[in-house]
Amino acid sequence: MIIKTSPLAPKKLKKLYEIDGVSISSASCGIKKNFKDDLVLIKFDSPSQIYGVFTNSKTPGAPIIWNKSIIRNGKVSALIINSGNANVFNGKKGEEALKKIITALSLELSVNKKEIYMASTGVIGEPLDYRKIIKKIPFLVKNLNNNPQSWLKAANAIRTTDTFPKLHSEKIKLNEKEDFYINGIAKGSGMIAPNMATMLSFIISNLPLEKNETKRIFYDIVEKTFNSITVDSDTSTSDMVLLILVKNKNRQNLSPSKKKESLDKLESLMNNLAHLIVKDGEGASKFIKISIDGAQNYKDAKNLGMSIANSPLFKTAMAGSDLNWGRIIMALGKTGIAINNSQISIKFGNFFILKSGQNLLTKNIKKINGYLKKKEIEIFVTVGKGSGSSSVWTCDLTKDYININTDYRS
Amino acid sequence: MIIKTSPLAPKKLKKLYEIDGVSISSASCGIKKNFKDDLVLIKFDSPSQIYGVFTNSKTPGAPIIWNKSIIRNGKVSALIINSGNANVFNGKKGEEALKKIITALSLELSVNKKEIYMASTGVIGEPLDYRKIIKKIPFLVKNLNNNPQSWLKAANAIRTTDTFPKLHSEKIKLNEKEDFYINGIAKGSGMIAPNMATMLSFIISNLPLEKNETKRIFYDIVEKTFNSITVDSDTSTSDMVLLILVKNKNRQNLSPSKKKESLDKLESLMNNLAHLIVKDGEGASKFIKISIDGAQNYKDAKNLGMSIANSPLFKTAMAGSDLNWGRIIMALGKTGIAINNSQISIKFGNFFILKSGQNLLTKNIKKINGYLKKKEIEIFVTVGKGSGSSSVWTCDLTKDYININTDYRS
Repeated sequence: MIIKTSPLAPKKLKKLYEIDGVSISSASCGIKKNFKDDLVLIKFDSPSQIYGVFTNSKTPGAPIIWNKSIIRNGKVSALIINSGNANVFNGKKGEEALKKIITALSLELSVNKKEIYMASTGVIGEPLDYRKIIKKIPFLVKNLNNNPQSWLKAANAIRTTDTFPKLHSEKIKLNEKEDFYINGIAKGSGMIAPNMATMLSFIISNLPLEKNETKRIFYDIVEKTFNSITVDSDTSTSDMVLLILVKNKNRQNLSPSKKKESLDKLESLMNNLAHLIVKDGEGASKFIKISIDGAQNYKDAKNLGMSIANSPLFKTAMAGSDLNWGRIIMALGKTGIAINNSQISIKFGNFFILKSGQNLLTKNIKKINGYLKKKEIEIFVTVGKGSGSSSVWTCDLTKDYININTDYRS
Repeated sequence: MIIKTSPLAPKKLKKLYEIDGVSISSASCGIKKNFKDDLVLIKFDSPSQIYGVFTNSKTPGAPIIWNKSIIRNGKVSALIINSGNANVFNGKKGEEALKKIITALSLELSVNKKEIYMASTGVIGEPLDYRKIIKKIPFLVKNLNNNPQSWLKAANAIRTTDTFPKLHSEKIKLNEKEDFYINGIAKGSGMIAPNMATMLSFIISNLPLEKNETKRIFYDIVEKTFNSITVDSDTSTSDMVLLILVKNKNRQNLSPSKKKESLDKLESLMNNLAHLIVKDGEGASKFIKISIDGAQNYKDAKNLGMSIANSPLFKTAMAGSDLNWGRIIMALGKTGIAINNSQISIKFGNFFILKSGQNLLTKNIKKINGYLKKKEIEIFVTVGKGSGSSSVWTCDLTKDYININTDYRS
């Protein structure tokens, strides 16, 4: 099966920055077929701050279990990522494979095992041949460098069903001689739903941010970005978002305005990476933003939005550019969340279908039918109960989703 | 678009029985195109016991709101059903349309309005032209009869995207001269998920069952049958299962053994109708039973089963006869329900993949790959936590689901 690049892929790839104290390399170790890169090493010159959000799955992969056990220490010296095999549900053998890889890397780099993180993505329940990975460690270490091109190579190496590499960067200008940078790479295109579903994202920056505060801020941004996207409502066993802050030579405090700018840019980068994952949703032909307003609170708003975003009937209607807005009503209703039916408004782009319960469809139907043919759709729903609001992002459900997933393993 | 009959449709249709005191008729009133029947009237000679389970949707259709408001009285004299328009989200106009129909029928039949139930299925959010229905009421009343063939006609008239009519019957032999009967018809093929999702089912019998007890028994059976099936996880705004018990002339108490036989047959009939709905799941090519055992309780077992049954990744794998059992692990994990990973067993038909956490895949892979090509698949999962068990039924997710739903309204 030939899989075409998503029609929603960005036309231009963002260039990542050289960040002092960070180096990166990729290799093919033979887990993926055809000598494709399937292994990435990221090395930090000194132990760096690390923050992580991991899948809520009750059947997590061995790397998730390992990372969760060491993240309290808050320090990272290296990160190794393989694609093609998720090392999930391999029982004790899975744990042993992971430990052998961590040990080998610890010896090769002379760093503490508890400062080495691992991420794996790919097929579930097939033993991971750790020897293939260990054999490549000397090569990876030897080839570490901080060339921006190596980040792109890494973004490619972590792909599974992704049709394009996902990366983004931001620069914060501090003064004439000094800039701060944020680099991010990500992967994911199926099994995407909130709570860290088949996505990996690694965000690395030399911003001087306070430790305690950063954790909370990072969690908040993950909730609004990576945890507000869905492709198919399936949640993966393997996924994580890591934020790593390396020391910079001229470490200093940021002014309040520079700090705000930095956090805004961090959020923008994470939002961007999350959206790239939806835009590469398996079979996606449309990128859809759903904004809910007027719910009793944020949680209700998010659940209402996700109910629409995950409804196969809504998603197939979008694939057909079919204004079947009854499916939005159905999706709101099935959540069991209290809404005020006589006050519901629904807007596609700038065009109302319902305004406070009043049906304006006849007036706007031509414009909406035209709007529905676009690649990017925005839907606004107000439910008349309170002031809770939330935005979520999804894609349509097309025949290509089925094509891709009926024979993923073959 | 031409939609072929589901490959899972039964080869032979069950014949329904004549039940004294029940008559039925169908008509085409012009809501559906091409003069297809879209209207059914069922009339009971005397007010009969009625029990109902309705959608949990917070955006229910006008008929649901009406039926819920009168079901406390527990009596029914007539039931009118239309297809092609669900009369959902039409605000006050929807309520008025319903009331005009009920009033007209009440006058025509000389029965109490509060003993008339209505069911509507079809598109959401389009005004229901009640005049079309009212105009046909005299015709419907005139043509009432208790010919078994009329039940089949009715089962056809209530179809929407259904590719075959759904009906079932049971007979309970009381003695040489007397039998009891149960007739049931149903519709539904998309927007099917627990809690009464786009399905209508009407079960009519002359069994002499006790009022108070019957309600609880009926709810229990609905939970294990109609509420244990899913096609696409979407829940409809309109759906209901009604059980109606008409008086029989020689009303008498059933012996304990006859009562058990009767209730078993009622459950069997309801199970059968529920399964027919899954077998007509939009685009379905496989009927899949998922049995969960060893959960902490029934609720956990059902949620684990439904998580597998609703997973698009699991359903697409089944469509491709692809043994991607990792997706079962993923679906168990994403529920957040505690399970014992080292004790999980997974069996396809008679063949183990995992047995108490031990991987037997290599041994059985050929047999399982053969088994996966069958039209009916049974999957057993044990999760090693307790003694809660549940079975749920679903179908696979194929390209035809997308075909059917991308342009349902056109």
